[in-house]
Amino acid sequence: MPSETPQPAFVLVRPQMGENIGAAARAMWNFGLDRMRVVAPRDGWPSEKAVAMASGAGRLLDEARLYDDLAGALDDCTYVYATTARPRELTKPVLSPERAMEGARARIAEGERVAVLFGPERAGLENEDVARANAIISVPVNPAFPSLNLAQCVLLTGYEWQRTGGGVVHVADVLRGDWATGREIEALAAHYEERLEEAGFFFPETKAEGMKINLRNLWSRMRLSRADVQMLHGIMRQMVRWKSR
Amino acid sequence: MPSETPQPAFVLVRPQMGENIGAAARAMWNFGLDRMRVVAPRDGWPSEKAVAMASGAGRLLDEARLYDDLAGALDDCTYVYATTARPRELTKPVLSPERAMEGARARIAEGERVAVLFGPERAGLENEDVARANAIISVPVNPAFPSLNLAQCVLLTGYEWQRTGGGVVHVADVLRGDWATGREIEALAAHYEERLEEAGFFFPETKAEGMKINLRNLWSRMRLSRADVQMLHGIMRQMVRWKSR
Repeated sequence: MPSETPQPAFVLVRPQMGENIGAAARAMWNFGLDRMRVVAPRDGWPSEKAVAMASGAGRLLDEARLYDDLAGALDDCTYVYATTARPRELTKPVLSPERAMEGARARIAEGERVAVLFGPERAGLENEDVARANAIISVPVNPAFPSLNLAQCVLLTGYEWQRTGGGVVHVADVLRGDWATGREIEALAAHYEERLEEAGFFFPETKAEGMKINLRNLWSRMRLSRADVQMLHGIMRQMVRWKSR
Repeated sequence: MPSETPQPAFVLVRPQMGENIGAAARAMWNFGLDRMRVVAPRDGWPSEKAVAMASGAGRLLDEARLYDDLAGALDDCTYVYATTARPRELTKPVLSPERAMEGARARIAEGERVAVLFGPERAGLENEDVARANAIISVPVNPAFPSLNLAQCVLLTGYEWQRTGGGVVHVADVLRGDWATGREIEALAAHYEERLEEAGFFFPETKAEGMKINLRNLWSRMRLSRADVQMLHGIMRQMVRWKSR
């Protein structure tokens, strides 16, 4: 069964190669999207090649809805986005994937049923297909080299669906909880200061204070883990041992 | 020659199949990135298969720098990001592609030389490779299905490089300048009102005012182009002509 999470349907319009349908399924499922609709696939349905390519995302193909024409696929949809490489339609807003997926989320939250259309590999959507859409999504690629394939277009749109959902963790310190504490840093700094003092490192005396401050700044700038601190203690102990031998 | 635009180098570390190197080049150039470095490609260099796959982005391969090991590839770099599917390193910040590319832009603006590492297709980067990075990029994929391939990982990172650059046009009304003016909408509304009045549409009289307001709301909600307005005038004229025959 498709997931319960409200989400847009991704509609592949007259896709050509089964491999590309499978790759599109993978791209969708990478971002938790699992409602695929397929309109008039060139090489028939179900597609062995699609299944082989989809591997872990094969469920999406099993559950995909098949339609003879685009009108049927959009029967229950209240808002439709069409992806195109070069927007040709002149009377619809052309949105970045980011704005489009923000809009899709807002509409879906209000109970709308949203679809996103992806055209056949070679030619893209026909004007007739785009005419059924309320807005156009255009990925801002290098104008000198707009070469996204079907699965890549699906991937970037799915990525934006996920990204604009706000669930993305932007910065994660996996180490959380294992950073050295101020006391441990202080002990490390004191250890180094003491030994380096003995070793005559802080010379000449007029510069000693500044050198110590620089050293303390170094420890704090490094953001050390407990393991780092232990290792740095060990290094200093070893140098002292070596000197004493 | 590579473009002058300041940008990160994308470093493919021990890539396996030439096709994937070519696909990575295409993915980069989609977003205007053209500084590729290749470390110890499994099947040798130059790679015919890479060139065949890269097609329009072949220049990136011609200009790619080849290195025997990762240390050499990072020789001139001051800040390094490593992409990994599942972050294993425990002492580095793990960033979303978005935050990472924002950071990369800031660093590059300050004159730093930034690299982004991408691992071999199957296994990804080794711990030893990741140890050379200052931070980790992890694409927030579906934890139940993290299946990005090399070119897809390059694509999403390149996409974020471009997106965070601020040059993206989020909403483009291609029609700009050709929308109908208030006066034209007013004339259209008046035309319809007048003819529909003659046709006995606004009935019963107690509801006429409300019906007219609804009709006006319809015109404004539709956001019409001049061409639309002309067409709507034409429709009404034709209905009148038809009636008069």
